[in-house]
Amino acid sequence: MEPGPPSGSRPTEQGPCLSGLLGAHQAAPASSPSAAGAEPGRCPLSVAAVLPAGGCGERMGVPTPKQFCPILERPLISYTLQALERVCWIKDIVVAVTSENMEAMNSIIQKYQHKRISLVEAGGTRHRSIFNGLKALAEDQPDSKLSKPEVVIIHDAVRPFVEEDVLFKVVIAAKEHGAAGAIRPLVSTVISPSADGCLDHSLERARYRASEMPQAFLFDVIYEAYQQCSDYDLEFGTECLQLALKYCHTNAKLVEGSPDLWKVTYKRDLYAAESIIKERISQEICVVMDTKEGEEHIGLLLEAVLKCELNHVKITSGALQHAGSDLQRIISEQCYNFVCVNVMTSDFQDTQKLLSILEESNLSTLYPVVVVSVHFLDFKLATLGQKMENLMWIRGFAKEMKRRNILLCGLLVCYPQDEQKLQESLKQAAIIIAALIKERNSGLVGQLLVA
Amino acid sequence: MEPGPPSGSRPTEQGPCLSGLLGAHQAAPASSPSAAGAEPGRCPLSVAAVLPAGGCGERMGVPTPKQFCPILERPLISYTLQALERVCWIKDIVVAVTSENMEAMNSIIQKYQHKRISLVEAGGTRHRSIFNGLKALAEDQPDSKLSKPEVVIIHDAVRPFVEEDVLFKVVIAAKEHGAAGAIRPLVSTVISPSADGCLDHSLERARYRASEMPQAFLFDVIYEAYQQCSDYDLEFGTECLQLALKYCHTNAKLVEGSPDLWKVTYKRDLYAAESIIKERISQEICVVMDTKEGEEHIGLLLEAVLKCELNHVKITSGALQHAGSDLQRIISEQCYNFVCVNVMTSDFQDTQKLLSILEESNLSTLYPVVVVSVHFLDFKLATLGQKMENLMWIRGFAKEMKRRNILLCGLLVCYPQDEQKLQESLKQAAIIIAALIKERNSGLVGQLLVA
Repeated sequence: MEPGPPSGSRPTEQGPCLSGLLGAHQAAPASSPSAAGAEPGRCPLSVAAVLPAGGCGERMGVPTPKQFCPILERPLISYTLQALERVCWIKDIVVAVTSENMEAMNSIIQKYQHKRISLVEAGGTRHRSIFNGLKALAEDQPDSKLSKPEVVIIHDAVRPFVEEDVLFKVVIAAKEHGAAGAIRPLVSTVISPSADGCLDHSLERARYRASEMPQAFLFDVIYEAYQQCSDYDLEFGTECLQLALKYCHTNAKLVEGSPDLWKVTYKRDLYAAESIIKERISQEICVVMDTKEGEEHIGLLLEAVLKCELNHVKITSGALQHAGSDLQRIISEQCYNFVCVNVMTSDFQDTQKLLSILEESNLSTLYPVVVVSVHFLDFKLATLGQKMENLMWIRGFAKEMKRRNILLCGLLVCYPQDEQKLQESLKQAAIIIAALIKERNSGLVGQLLVA
Repeated sequence: MEPGPPSGSRPTEQGPCLSGLLGAHQAAPASSPSAAGAEPGRCPLSVAAVLPAGGCGERMGVPTPKQFCPILERPLISYTLQALERVCWIKDIVVAVTSENMEAMNSIIQKYQHKRISLVEAGGTRHRSIFNGLKALAEDQPDSKLSKPEVVIIHDAVRPFVEEDVLFKVVIAAKEHGAAGAIRPLVSTVISPSADGCLDHSLERARYRASEMPQAFLFDVIYEAYQQCSDYDLEFGTECLQLALKYCHTNAKLVEGSPDLWKVTYKRDLYAAESIIKERISQEICVVMDTKEGEEHIGLLLEAVLKCELNHVKITSGALQHAGSDLQRIISEQCYNFVCVNVMTSDFQDTQKLLSILEESNLSTLYPVVVVSVHFLDFKLATLGQKMENLMWIRGFAKEMKRRNILLCGLLVCYPQDEQKLQESLKQAAIIIAALIKERNSGLVGQLLVA
């Protein structure tokens, strides 16, 4: 598996509920309990997650801690919260942040409408932060408003691409083995240096694995381990599985993870994360038009060319009639790209209708939405210059939309009588639409492009 | 150090010569022999490099082997060759490619004008490919046209960001110790699984390192090791340092490398590499205008605003007079971004002059060059529509330029009499210019944007 677009699943789509799956024995293939070697029967599990987010990101080489670095103007940690949130069977998500970032974290939760999140204060090290998160979940704490889960997931704030599948697998394995963690093959050979900085020996790559996140534990096991463990462990340790082994004699089950689990560590990882997110929200384009039944619409031609030219993208269409009920469905399924075809006489009416619907939907809360307002021009009827002058109205309007995270551009498509030339115009339009959607650059909003 | 833009150094700039440095004792700070703990004296070293490039890139999840995946339409391996080539003291670069990719590799060498490259046939494994490369360098081979180097560098085709500094360090260390390799701290904890897929033990992260590339060896040491080593090693081994240790009892010196050394392994790494390369070639913008001495030029205003708004970018200026001798220098120093300011009456004359100079320079052989043709418009003198109509000529011209890897866009800047409004127009122009340079998307060429 690759960190490209997940097969069919949308970034914020909700997966099936674990409790439902377990109760009704209707496991989806990827989430089958037997995949993790476990058969938990009919008993639903109670699951919470702890997310240490107190790190300072020194390896990033930037002053902002990496979990707060923006991707498409939204902090990285919000993507990770979104990935956990959409898994409906995780009932609580406890995030450990430093006191100086507490306010910023609260704003993030509010702005991006995160749910089921509790904040605790981070400790000075990763282990201390996790311990604080566990304490908040333990019922023995007098001021805890949370209830103790049977299984607790520990994940990193800087691994935003975790899928429900692997979360499910580690939870089921933890239920059976007491502890479980995701692993990946080693990319580089691991070597042991001698005291004088020379090679002492190298490890046989095939016999070792990289320990990644998420991990899951029976709550009582990992809480016991943290209560028992030494100050040295809390200060210098890095591996929760090791604590469970050392203090509770629990040999964690290791679960093969996908490359998606990688940790955003260096600046290049931020670049990669941004490209992956952009790619994921560019998988579908909805062509919007105001058709009446039986009417031949130029938009249908454009739709056909988009389907042909952009063959990795799903092209759907939505009508503006009936208060856009078609569109409402497409929006609820998280399509972030719209090409609105305006009929020649109406100029911007259809685009304005679409924008009203998008504004009401809150679709742009999590991701910038691209809207390309398409206008056709027959050179026989008007000059390009005149038409452009009319349409420059888009600049002011785009500015307003940008404040709502909607990126609006205009696209004027030449509409010659000649069939072949029309096809060329439409192909050119498809290339420009693809570029606008791919880059999602707010510096280009309000421009009127010509195909 | 971060994989961001190297301090002051351009992507293709040539570094100082090792032989020169060693002979004249004029080592640059970063390349000081003492940095590697060695003092090689006055004797110049002869150095060659071997690059195994026969892999199939199965982890990438794409059919093209990763070393041939395009970044800005140029294959990844060409960037790596460029990184080695610019180090003038590496006299030969031997690349091992499979017979089926031999022709493609020859085209790459020709198209991107690579020098000092010899091709050999790759073996079935990484070690066999390296061995083939070493054989070509050994003088005992009857048909070898290459001469045996004192030290040989082994590098990966998929690590394009290697800097001269670390190459120098491993070469000097290899001269002293017989072998040397770059290392990095571990990002994840390394664990050892038991036979039943559970955690057996985890390694103390601080005591181990990831072995990266480049590595360097006394030629006789590594060639001897490959001649001695078993079929099992050739088939399943991954670590050259281990061969030198096992067969020649040479404990390699380990050299701390920068994060730049990372290996393009997954699709996300291609995304990261593309972003890093785009960032590196977007560090400088040259504002081009046809000024006469003492003349007040609107271009100077734009230059001032660019300096103020894009404060991570170096803004230079070049004049078109005297056959563009100013410009020639800027081009020779590898600036890949030009903003050409046309005076109101001339329309495209200045941009055309600039494009001729760029075409002659071959600057766009390695990277796409962005040219923004800026035109000012006083609304009192002409309507936007009229002006745009005149300038739509740019579309045809941009198409032609695109074939030469020059990405041309037009930018019409409103020039109101009001000082404050003019500043706003210029700021808007800076935002658009920054977006065009950042994205470098060929789908947007020929567009006429409005600020």
